[in-house]
Amino acid sequence: MVEPVNLAEKFALIDEYWSPRIAGEINDFHVKLVKLKGEFVWHHHEQEDELFLVVRGTLCIQLRDRDLWLREGEFAVIPRGVEHRPVASEEVHVLLLEPDTTVNTGNVQDEHTRPAQWI
Amino acid sequence: MVEPVNLAEKFALIDEYWSPRIAGEINDFHVKLVKLKGEFVWHHHEQEDELFLVVRGTLCIQLRDRDLWLREGEFAVIPRGVEHRPVASEEVHVLLLEPDTTVNTGNVQDEHTRPAQWI
Repeated sequence: MVEPVNLAEKFALIDEYWSPRIAGEINDFHVKLVKLKGEFVWHHHEQEDELFLVVRGTLCIQLRDRDLWLREGEFAVIPRGVEHRPVASEEVHVLLLEPDTTVNTGNVQDEHTRPAQWI
Repeated sequence: MVEPVNLAEKFALIDEYWSPRIAGEINDFHVKLVKLKGEFVWHHHEQEDELFLVVRGTLCIQLRDRDLWLREGEFAVIPRGVEHRPVASEEVHVLLLEPDTTVNTGNVQDEHTRPAQWI
């Protein structure tokens, strides 16, 4: 059954930071929604490129050589292998687009690691 | 080089309806931006699911058994094999997410068919 997904309604259901929820499946890709606040862990993804689209707020993605700032209505693709760390001084709503094999902490396994569940 | 992509700035560059432009690549997927106005052709995609995210305006995606309405901030995934026809009474800005093999008119080859170019 094809149904509309309302981003604002889905984000309102998310009560935990840094825990991506699956909102859509396109072949072997997932659309995930995540609320971010604070500092994440440095990591990279071995095989997966990762798209960050900012739906609300402003996101800083730290790269090893510079900071990448994304405002509302902007996206960037972090290529596989590139170390990055998302940082959000205020709450940010982000739509992620990535292969369904992607783990949120990439090559790192720590207390931030979350299996993604459907929302 | 990882750079931010501003959706509004990219849409401002598009001067043709129904002609998706590639704005990002994530593994073997493309993010495409397209302006829609009027009625498209009925088609389906044999292998590719297709995500429509409405960035501005209201989109009707006709399915064979009903109409699917998407407002700003809403998306839907049309599964492979499902016949659909986008219709927009007013200009709509849509972000598409789909495998890089996707042709805009799917199984149909007609005057609406466009190769997607980078923007």
